[in-house]
Amino acid sequence: MLRGLMQERPLLISSLIEYAARNHGGTPIVSRLPDGSLHRYGYRELEQRAKRLANALLALGVKPGDRVATLAWNTHRHMELYYAVSGIGAVLHTVNPRLFPDQLEYICNHAEDRFLFFDLTFAPLVQKLRSRFTHLEGYIGLGDAAQVEKAGDMGGPVLSYEALLAAQSADYAWPIFDENTASSLCYTSGTTGNPKGVLYSHRSTVLHSFAVCAADGLGLSSRDSALVIVPLFHANAWGVPYAAAMCGAKLVLPGPMLDGASVCQLLTQEKVNFSMGVPTVWMNFFAHLDKHPGDRPPHLKRVVIGGSAVPPAMLDRFEKDLGISVLHLWGMTETSPLGTTSAPPFALAERSPDELRALKIKQGRVIYGVDMKIVDDENAELPHDGKAFGLLKVRGPWITRQYFKGEGGSILDEGDYFSTGDVATLDEHSYMQITDRAKDVIKSGGEWISSIELENAAVAFPGVHEAAVIGLPHPTWQERPLLIVVQKPGASVDKAALRAHLAQHVARWWLPDDITFVPELPHTATGKLSKLTLRKQFQGYVLPAAPSRDGAAS
Amino acid sequence: MLRGLMQERPLLISSLIEYAARNHGGTPIVSRLPDGSLHRYGYRELEQRAKRLANALLALGVKPGDRVATLAWNTHRHMELYYAVSGIGAVLHTVNPRLFPDQLEYICNHAEDRFLFFDLTFAPLVQKLRSRFTHLEGYIGLGDAAQVEKAGDMGGPVLSYEALLAAQSADYAWPIFDENTASSLCYTSGTTGNPKGVLYSHRSTVLHSFAVCAADGLGLSSRDSALVIVPLFHANAWGVPYAAAMCGAKLVLPGPMLDGASVCQLLTQEKVNFSMGVPTVWMNFFAHLDKHPGDRPPHLKRVVIGGSAVPPAMLDRFEKDLGISVLHLWGMTETSPLGTTSAPPFALAERSPDELRALKIKQGRVIYGVDMKIVDDENAELPHDGKAFGLLKVRGPWITRQYFKGEGGSILDEGDYFSTGDVATLDEHSYMQITDRAKDVIKSGGEWISSIELENAAVAFPGVHEAAVIGLPHPTWQERPLLIVVQKPGASVDKAALRAHLAQHVARWWLPDDITFVPELPHTATGKLSKLTLRKQFQGYVLPAAPSRDGAAS
Repeated sequence: MLRGLMQERPLLISSLIEYAARNHGGTPIVSRLPDGSLHRYGYRELEQRAKRLANALLALGVKPGDRVATLAWNTHRHMELYYAVSGIGAVLHTVNPRLFPDQLEYICNHAEDRFLFFDLTFAPLVQKLRSRFTHLEGYIGLGDAAQVEKAGDMGGPVLSYEALLAAQSADYAWPIFDENTASSLCYTSGTTGNPKGVLYSHRSTVLHSFAVCAADGLGLSSRDSALVIVPLFHANAWGVPYAAAMCGAKLVLPGPMLDGASVCQLLTQEKVNFSMGVPTVWMNFFAHLDKHPGDRPPHLKRVVIGGSAVPPAMLDRFEKDLGISVLHLWGMTETSPLGTTSAPPFALAERSPDELRALKIKQGRVIYGVDMKIVDDENAELPHDGKAFGLLKVRGPWITRQYFKGEGGSILDEGDYFSTGDVATLDEHSYMQITDRAKDVIKSGGEWISSIELENAAVAFPGVHEAAVIGLPHPTWQERPLLIVVQKPGASVDKAALRAHLAQHVARWWLPDDITFVPELPHTATGKLSKLTLRKQFQGYVLPAAPSRDGAAS
Repeated sequence: MLRGLMQERPLLISSLIEYAARNHGGTPIVSRLPDGSLHRYGYRELEQRAKRLANALLALGVKPGDRVATLAWNTHRHMELYYAVSGIGAVLHTVNPRLFPDQLEYICNHAEDRFLFFDLTFAPLVQKLRSRFTHLEGYIGLGDAAQVEKAGDMGGPVLSYEALLAAQSADYAWPIFDENTASSLCYTSGTTGNPKGVLYSHRSTVLHSFAVCAADGLGLSSRDSALVIVPLFHANAWGVPYAAAMCGAKLVLPGPMLDGASVCQLLTQEKVNFSMGVPTVWMNFFAHLDKHPGDRPPHLKRVVIGGSAVPPAMLDRFEKDLGISVLHLWGMTETSPLGTTSAPPFALAERSPDELRALKIKQGRVIYGVDMKIVDDENAELPHDGKAFGLLKVRGPWITRQYFKGEGGSILDEGDYFSTGDVATLDEHSYMQITDRAKDVIKSGGEWISSIELENAAVAFPGVHEAAVIGLPHPTWQERPLLIVVQKPGASVDKAALRAHLAQHVARWWLPDDITFVPELPHTATGKLSKLTLRKQFQGYVLPAAPSRDGAAS
């Protein structure tokens, strides 16, 4: 082998904040703090404070590889933790505070977290769980000494973040080490078994940041003022905290206030042109706009929606009503998370608006860095024809190769592909569309029915606020679909009319055997529909008479 | 160290073409062949032919690390060589056919090139140099057997490229190897000493491709139809041949026909929205438009200009007259080449058009991946204030650490910075502006005069086609500037009026001691002003009476 003669500098997370501090030092990071006030500084000061924090972590005795946990909202302090913890070679473990206490206990103990940095809104949670954490040696409240004091009894000593920083110098040189060093840890709560940890590396994080900044990724740039609604504890907020430093984007961090009014205020006041969040947040946003049409944000041009599929009605509201373009993102904690985005390529630019809309509803196109394929039950690859659907598998430099501590055993196939657990199609332009979770797909008479397509069709019907489809056991057909609907306030949906609407969008043998109404649907801690809970709730539910396979149902 | 658990797949050039073939298989690569005809296929076929070529190279006996040279225009065949040669682990050596024969001989022998692939337009050059090449074992003409036959005597056997490919199967799996393996080689013709080779690696090339695709880099995307005017033998055509595959951009390759009419035809016919080239090419473009205003390309939205500074008048013609935005790029062969680009960040978005224009005339902003600083004679870093100018130094994963075979010795300072040989300023937003080449700066009375600023001011004067400023020895002031002007056809520039114009733009003590007219200026093989030649031509030129330092000159 002849070795190239280029500089082999490692790809380290510290290089991102060093770049931003040096070249975008005055670019603002604006944070809504838990008390509602706004905090504002630039990348230069972010790095200075991250260096103070680095010295504080070392003074606490944090060593390379140690896990340092956060229970925190999107604020500048959480950003400082992102850069300081990974920067010294330790591992940032962002914990989702919306998990059940038992899960929090399991996760922090499994990770062997040594220190916990938490927003003081979580003081009651800390007090409750403190005695159950087996490895935690220190608790640091994200506030000054007076604020920590005011937070009351937390079952033991709690240090003040601001006091820690004030005691330290900003004089610190980020160390250089192997780019494959672990940088951060996120647990993904599977529907079966215990949550499993995804252990990112500096290399995977920096490479993923390039994908976020790519014009065909999220296209994040120094021209953006970006409101990061997706939580910093949710798959690294889709990589935006890192990528923003890579390009010098202005960041707006909403803290705990994700209601429509607060979001609209930040969008307008901070001239936000780009924002990212899960569909639920945008539902709140539109509910607010319905009541306050004057709050329509004047600068917003692009939104990224991920976490779960974009409802077509939401796409239309953004694009047709507001002129805001929607980028659909698909990914998982295990994929850092960027796997696909929905920007249409040159070859499709001249398609009709309806054709483009149909493409945007898909999960998006495969981006460079992600090898993606769909396979059948024998792991044979299926064609990119937009019709064949099979298990979705991915491979690449920001895809997990193993869970933390080897949980779940070997998770790659012989070609190093990771199975996503999604069932999907791929079309000739490599637009991927998830037709179901492998475990949610409804198996009827030996063929598959996509619960997601049925849900999308149902949500497009007037009066339907949210919809879920699950498969129930059926004596003849193995499983048949049940449609569960949450109606909009004041609406009264006619079942026959809804059924007639569905019949225009799906094959007749896909039509649900029954439709039922509920006041609300169960969601997971990350805001996704919890079909596991639904299946439990509807265990024993009796479907009406079995349909005939040719569609002559009830 | 705790190692991350992400997949550590190497960053290989073959992954770029694999991605494009798989996900953008039908996206066109359109080439103008030397005979003027157009060739058209998609990335899928490009990869298929690159695999045939890979098998052909192996059949010829090419081994990992071997250098394979090209003397070729921008066509699909040159693209195939880009991917096949590097893909098998050999080194693609792109040779600039505009170099002097002595330089070509030196470069190919120094590189120890084993095979030469050449466009048949270079048959006379091959015949002339063949006996002087010491390591070349095989010559392959880029055409079919009949075309090679027709090209006449080339001093020995020449294989047909198409015949080679036809004899091979497209069945080939790109090998996986260390990402630091050498991938390609470009010689940079210094003004002193022999040309030196820059040996890129797979890693540096893939990382650089991310920078080209970044919204703050060139922002190349799958929405682009890109006319690559910058030659594939010129610093890897600024990385576009690689980055285009990374994002699936449509490529338009102009072959040898870079005249205004041919360029305009491709721009219109292929709906080109993005193009890149050196200023000289765009001068021809505007000269053509002056005569044929109807040829204005309707789809072109963005141009990248690099290689030498964008003349302000050219910037205005693009942006004000045509509404085409200009991205200024600075880089060197040693920097892969992307170092800075000129997209203005959010913080500057509300500046006036005049302020933005002033920023766009600078070489651009520092991008992530390039650590950049300016230093004084003692290597002490100078401030980012837009005023202090010092030697420009860079560092990063796509910057050279050593020339091929160690030529020129150690080229990095103690902090691993490479000295660019440019003198520059950096402002508070990290916009870099080159004020001179270190060797071209005019040292007058212990202070520096920027030859480039004087040239820019001169070119903005009506009737001035091109201008150069060199320093001539002066008994009192060490050096004083001489302005050398090429007039536009039919123009008659008044020296006093030109001097009065300059006085509005530069300090009075910078004003040239003399102005002289010449029919044309000498250029290097890469199209840059050859100040070395000019200094030789004007050796002994006598300047008029010495100016006084306070500006009361002649």
